[in-house]
Amino acid sequence: MGFQLTILGSSGALPAYGRFPSSQYLNIQRQHFLIDCGEGIQTQLKRYSLPTHKIERIFISHLHGDHYLGLMGLLFSMHLQRRTNELHIYSQPGLDEIITLQLKYSRSSLSYPLVFHPIMHDRPACIYEDTVLTVHTIPLKHKVPCTGFLFREKVKPRKIDKEMLSDNMLLEHLAQLKQGKDVYDEAGKLLYANADYTLPPRPSYSFAYCSDTVFDESIVEQIKGVDLLYHEATFMNEHADKATVTLHSTAMQAATIAKEASVNHLLVGHFSARYQQLEPLLEEATSVFPHTVLAIEGKTIDLELL
Amino acid sequence: MGFQLTILGSSGALPAYGRFPSSQYLNIQRQHFLIDCGEGIQTQLKRYSLPTHKIERIFISHLHGDHYLGLMGLLFSMHLQRRTNELHIYSQPGLDEIITLQLKYSRSSLSYPLVFHPIMHDRPACIYEDTVLTVHTIPLKHKVPCTGFLFREKVKPRKIDKEMLSDNMLLEHLAQLKQGKDVYDEAGKLLYANADYTLPPRPSYSFAYCSDTVFDESIVEQIKGVDLLYHEATFMNEHADKATVTLHSTAMQAATIAKEASVNHLLVGHFSARYQQLEPLLEEATSVFPHTVLAIEGKTIDLELL
Repeated sequence: MGFQLTILGSSGALPAYGRFPSSQYLNIQRQHFLIDCGEGIQTQLKRYSLPTHKIERIFISHLHGDHYLGLMGLLFSMHLQRRTNELHIYSQPGLDEIITLQLKYSRSSLSYPLVFHPIMHDRPACIYEDTVLTVHTIPLKHKVPCTGFLFREKVKPRKIDKEMLSDNMLLEHLAQLKQGKDVYDEAGKLLYANADYTLPPRPSYSFAYCSDTVFDESIVEQIKGVDLLYHEATFMNEHADKATVTLHSTAMQAATIAKEASVNHLLVGHFSARYQQLEPLLEEATSVFPHTVLAIEGKTIDLELL
Repeated sequence: MGFQLTILGSSGALPAYGRFPSSQYLNIQRQHFLIDCGEGIQTQLKRYSLPTHKIERIFISHLHGDHYLGLMGLLFSMHLQRRTNELHIYSQPGLDEIITLQLKYSRSSLSYPLVFHPIMHDRPACIYEDTVLTVHTIPLKHKVPCTGFLFREKVKPRKIDKEMLSDNMLLEHLAQLKQGKDVYDEAGKLLYANADYTLPPRPSYSFAYCSDTVFDESIVEQIKGVDLLYHEATFMNEHADKATVTLHSTAMQAATIAKEASVNHLLVGHFSARYQQLEPLLEEATSVFPHTVLAIEGKTIDLELL
């Protein structure tokens, strides 16, 4: 019941050196999410043996091709594999129109319900919540409406300490302990103090995904203290002028945001086709924020092990 | 100045075993054509060092995702690489709408002119012609409007025999020989007989691309005697019932069409995800039509060497 992120694509807009466009696969307590879905990502899901059929929700940051052009192929493949369970797509308005038009011309009716959730980019909003987690948008500054996504686990209940269980304990008592309560008998006498019979849960983690964006300190407040921040780092600092013009960031800028937000770990990606070697980008970022890793395709980051 | 076809993708609708969806690259006398463009094909073009920037015309057989979903990414990449020359796209109506909608939401204006040529599928039609070749549609029977494409070189002019050139030959005379004429002096006396000073050209080749289609003998007349026929072979004969239902063909059916049309060589592809090994499909086809080859990605077929 962990919190694992797998990198599927790390390339900027122009694919190069075999790198795939943006996509990440997130497994939070056996809920499966896909974040962005560039061209070829269905192949990457297969390559890394990820259970495509378990994906319930897909989050698309913005409607530049390198962030969504693999989605239509994935939807068709799910159909060919006879998926029946609902699939939810969260995106800027327009993607529903793009998908609907392509379904029309392929004369296809998908084997499963597709539910669109149009999102706004002007202010942070909670776009998904269940008993386990929340997902909020992070407004980003890019050439088209664009948001990042903040996944935050809720505080988890304490776990029953199985070593403390005894045969004469009632199921009713166990249920009360699971709910975090102390257990009393009918006379009001304390039978089981919750703290004695339960163990603390693992920490609740948080992950912020920020792609694509110009250097923008206004996001710092919202992502403060997250366990893992993915921030795009299309360029190196020597090309900061290009970053400004194209509304992208440099590795140094990504690290500056991570430092200002006091996050635990930084992950950088969306690498420009001009860089074959990525180590210089990593060096630049770690000079500002040491706990940085590169988004390397196939890499899985387990937040319990960080 | 040859006639070479390179296979970029050979998979059926559901990609499997690392095979890419349909696409072929055709170079006829240094004119560069792309036929179908499934997801990931821009990566394949790069992998096989094909000059993407030289592609002038793209032919899309039909609007099923595995035949066109790589096009939008290719168009965006050409834009990022600052293409300026015109690109012509031949397709069933609807693709222009799909592309225009995606350009709208990406707020992009391409760096080069895109010219759409909507094609009809009810009868064969000449959709392109220049001094070197013609391209005709081949109406196919599939779940959506679908056509194949017949590329046919025109008869080429005879070539100057360089060994016969002499220093006192006028450029004017050379031009007349190139035009296939005999050369006379002012008094009407034969100076150079064309047959003595020129060599026959290489043969003019023809290539028919037929994907996707149910077994349909009505195409035989149009593709009679072509040098190379690509015909889809999604299934093996043991799954002929599936071929009928999905309006696809078996390897045996593809070979039957090749035999009835007396083509020189058959190329089969669009392999179902159910087949990891392709040799059994080849064996099935060659049992009916011996001159068959598999569409293996990266393979280039040079018609002069066949």
